[in-house]
Amino acid sequence: MRIISLLTDFGLEDNFVGVMKAVILNINPKASIVDICHNLNAHNIKAAAFILEASYRYFPKNTIHLAVVDPGVGSSRKKILVKTADFIFVGPDNGVLSLALQNQKIEKILEITNTKYFLRPVCDTFQARDIFAGVAAYLSIGERIESFGKKITTIKSLNLPKFKINRNNLIGEVIYIDRFGNLITNIDKKAFTGFVANNRFEIKINNKIIKSLSRSYADVKRGELLAIFDSFGNLEVSVNRGSAKDCLGAKETAAVITKRL
Amino acid sequence: MRIISLLTDFGLEDNFVGVMKAVILNINPKASIVDICHNLNAHNIKAAAFILEASYRYFPKNTIHLAVVDPGVGSSRKKILVKTADFIFVGPDNGVLSLALQNQKIEKILEITNTKYFLRPVCDTFQARDIFAGVAAYLSIGERIESFGKKITTIKSLNLPKFKINRNNLIGEVIYIDRFGNLITNIDKKAFTGFVANNRFEIKINNKIIKSLSRSYADVKRGELLAIFDSFGNLEVSVNRGSAKDCLGAKETAAVITKRL
Amino acid sequence: MRIISLLTDFGLEDNFVGVMKAVILNINPKASIVDICHNLNAHNIKAAAFILEASYRYFPKNTIHLAVVDPGVGSSRKKILVKTADFIFVGPDNGVLSLALQNQKIEKILEITNTKYFLRPVCDTFQARDIFAGVAAYLSIGERIESFGKKITTIKSLNLPKFKINRNNLIGEVIYIDRFGNLITNIDKKAFTGFVANNRFEIKINNKIIKSLSRSYADVKRGELLAIFDSFGNLEVSVNRGSAKDCLGAKETAAVITKRL
Repeated sequence: MRIISLLTDFGLEDNFVGVMKAVILNINPKASIVDICHNLNAHNIKAAAFILEASYRYFPKNTIHLAVVDPGVGSSRKKILVKTADFIFVGPDNGVLSLALQNQKIEKILEITNTKYFLRPVCDTFQARDIFAGVAAYLSIGERIESFGKKITTIKSLNLPKFKINRNNLIGEVIYIDRFGNLITNIDKKAFTGFVANNRFEIKINNKIIKSLSRSYADVKRGELLAIFDSFGNLEVSVNRGSAKDCLGAKETAAVITKRL
Repeated sequence: MRIISLLTDFGLEDNFVGVMKAVILNINPKASIVDICHNLNAHNIKAAAFILEASYRYFPKNTIHLAVVDPGVGSSRKKILVKTADFIFVGPDNGVLSLALQNQKIEKILEITNTKYFLRPVCDTFQARDIFAGVAAYLSIGERIESFGKKITTIKSLNLPKFKINRNNLIGEVIYIDRFGNLITNIDKKAFTGFVANNRFEIKINNKIIKSLSRSYADVKRGELLAIFDSFGNLEVSVNRGSAKDCLGAKETAAVITKRL
Repeated sequence: MRIISLLTDFGLEDNFVGVMKAVILNINPKASIVDICHNLNAHNIKAAAFILEASYRYFPKNTIHLAVVDPGVGSSRKKILVKTADFIFVGPDNGVLSLALQNQKIEKILEITNTKYFLRPVCDTFQARDIFAGVAAYLSIGERIESFGKKITTIKSLNLPKFKINRNNLIGEVIYIDRFGNLITNIDKKAFTGFVANNRFEIKINNKIIKSLSRSYADVKRGELLAIFDSFGNLEVSVNRGSAKDCLGAKETAAVITKRL
């Protein structure tokens, strides 16, 4: 049983995801389809790329990861398939796959061009149904990767904003906000601990100060602000049993500054 | 492995859908259950009928489509099962199945009456759990259709509003709005192209004018209004990377008028 | 094929649920995973416990129920596994399992301590991924229950508010509000019918009076208030094709008083 993971911004209010699954099962009735997420903000390629990167490695080897956040659907942007040592990734060539691919050994990149695997006629507003779902399904029954199109050598890549170090300040920002209102930053554990070393520090966000790192949300009282290394491996600002987003009125791109004292 | 598709207005905030799946798997542990959608507006039979019609054909032959948007649950409305050439449909007899059935060859209609397949006691506020889920599950393990009740010859049907032609005006309306704020109209491609032929035209909605058809959302600039034939096969008014619904303040039933110039 | 049910407050906006499924399928590719619900209000242990109790029994025997609403994640609260006559329950020891366990024969309780089954390193903000998902998955491939930790004898239990009887008043409250705005009370059918017996009665909530019980929502006109025994087995206040929550401005804990006339 081959696993196909799905990551889209199609939401669950309509039939988009259900119809993609129908197309897949029509080709491979034994495909095991797992939703990573469909409720990302519409058209948010960065969030999708971040979430795919934070998810793909937990799946079994040989999982086919299908990621379709595709505001350019039907335009000239390419449709691609990327084989890495452990997985296959399928999606539009708009950067959505690029963060997940950064740390993997890429074996092959193809532009998907073989219309034999497409539903006909292809509707240029829903290529996830008419092109991508079928490609993932045919991959899941063992169709050779080379069959889907022609080899290419580069894909569009996308970069999350990087933190900066300015003397005694480590300046990062909020790059993702989850359902709980946790503010995930672009500061990874290694960077943070290397910067802080044995010094005292304070973390500033929207004029609030956090003076220590917590190990679990419950380390502080209910309703209190805390900083923690989260399940994405990044520094996160949270409120115990509350929402840091609401509490701080913080948005994506909000600055998070760690000062070495 | 037999597929059962689910379409309801139960939402994903409660356990309704999960419990339906539990009941199905209790009867057929090998059933493959696919969600079409559960987040339709509560009690919106028309939207459900529209979505079912736009979805059923993508599923493998012999899929059992279970559609329960059922504001009259527990009342005297019938519970029905409809066998067509390729599928079986199960649901309340309130029109929810009728649009999907319009273009199919109906082989048999049954009123579901055999209590042998029901959970007991049947709760009259949740027949999806106590009646419909079980019927779909028993169908999926090959129970004969005739076992579930008695043959009937007609079902309640429901019609979407039809477009009208008034001299040089093709007058349609918005019948569905998707997650992206795209406004799906009741004007299909054939009707539109037949009406417009080789003439110039303009499409008017909420006092805004669109003067051409796009082939993909990206044909216009970000934030601009466009008209396109969508994945439902209908004329759709959209905004590239935005929401036509928000941009126009449009609602279902909003008039969409194409004028031949 | 062993079934694992999932109940969390992780929502479907992020990748939390998808990653839990990935971890499970990595250990048992044949696990059949069923979502009970993920959209409960964040950190609402009571609602989760109520929903688990209202759901578990519909699943096939031997289902592994994994319930993670866990505001104390990473703190000293225990992680437990409970074997009953028909099911296995896995989750944090914060009461989330306790209502479901009240009516079952408990055979064994274990504190989960064997790190062999954990992902490493364990992230103290996402033990559902790093601990619970793996435990459920290993259980689903037949790992012995005793392998996961040490026997304990008690778990934290949680009680829903109980109704009271004060002369001719049966005083209950709203304990759960579903997607439709139905107000589910803590008054079960047996208690209600025993109290009312053959007397006339009226049910008062937020200064509105209901004078009879309905058998189905459609017993009253569209938009009218009604009282009914619902699919949870409890007295429920509803509006036919509307929302009692919106109509009455009612919240959880709102008093629902039945007066014997």
